[in-house]
Amino acid sequence: MNRLLQQIAFIKEIDKLKYIQRKTRLFNSDRHENDAEHSWHLAMMTLVLVEHSNVEIDVLKVLKMVLIHDLVEIDSGDIFIFDTTKNHDNTAEELKAAKRIFGMLPEAQATALIALWLEFESGETNEAKFAKAMDRFEPILQNASNNGGTWREYKVPKEKVLDKTKPVAFGSKAIWEYSQNEIETLFKTL
Amino acid sequence: MNRLLQQIAFIKEIDKLKYIQRKTRLFNSDRHENDAEHSWHLAMMTLVLVEHSNVEIDVLKVLKMVLIHDLVEIDSGDIFIFDTTKNHDNTAEELKAAKRIFGMLPEAQATALIALWLEFESGETNEAKFAKAMDRFEPILQNASNNGGTWREYKVPKEKVLDKTKPVAFGSKAIWEYSQNEIETLFKTL
Repeated sequence: MNRLLQQIAFIKEIDKLKYIQRKTRLFNSDRHENDAEHSWHLAMMTLVLVEHSNVEIDVLKVLKMVLIHDLVEIDSGDIFIFDTTKNHDNTAEELKAAKRIFGMLPEAQATALIALWLEFESGETNEAKFAKAMDRFEPILQNASNNGGTWREYKVPKEKVLDKTKPVAFGSKAIWEYSQNEIETLFKTL
Repeated sequence: MNRLLQQIAFIKEIDKLKYIQRKTRLFNSDRHENDAEHSWHLAMMTLVLVEHSNVEIDVLKVLKMVLIHDLVEIDSGDIFIFDTTKNHDNTAEELKAAKRIFGMLPEAQATALIALWLEFESGETNEAKFAKAMDRFEPILQNASNNGGTWREYKVPKEKVLDKTKPVAFGSKAIWEYSQNEIETLFKTL
């Protein structure tokens, strides 16, 4: 019973992810997306797009990764990928957040989820590469549907967009090919 | 490439789930939860609580179920479980929605997801039972944290709450035992 109580405390705590606003907006919309919605959408994209992975991957592992990947932002907040004033490798603060949040769970469960989050962050395994591809691909679709979205709003040059979204290719060459076309087409209109 | 374009159209379409408001509110909050946030939370609960399932289950299958279970509401809307004026078995309208929404995907993928959604709806397999347990358990936690929440707001009697949440037991007797205690304790204060 003690395990269940710890798990329920964690389930209540992670509700806070629904209040973390991202810079990007929903499709054809002005409304900002929050991290819980974003995580759900990445999970759905994983389910539907897994056949385009460059290599065979463990779907369950990718799903777990995308579901938990932003939980640390409950403590550390969302950092906009094109924000040049903040350090995107603030792993010390994020690691502390991971330890606090996942640490609410029974020990073995906490350890496993922290390891999974670190694997995602490193982006080295095939599952992490695909999960990160989804994480980069969603804002491409959103910004394309919003006439440039955050790229236009923050005047991000095309070269920088292509550079930051390039990791899509490590997960899926097919999706990266589509993404490049979307970005090229969009920037012709901006 | 044609498959990818179909899948991307589906990914854009399901963004609408983020606009479907549920009756229940976030933890300790007045803000209503939307279906995308709800689906993400059920997926997280599945990950963390699966050890309490009455029987061994396929976690990947449960995750898929909870991620997609409310997509039909994009067309048919959310029906409050205690609303006595509406038919909760409006399967004709929901089936039409499932066929339209999942039908945007390549055929085999559409067929598989419709079958999975129907399996969830029937609630007969072990995976469907656990998925439905999560779907009933989240509002118990939310309402308990909100001083009665929708139960108080809509003056739902305790017996009706216990009756509607009972399916938690089909997925997990341990979680049902906890839920009954929460409900009994809460109604003493209402």
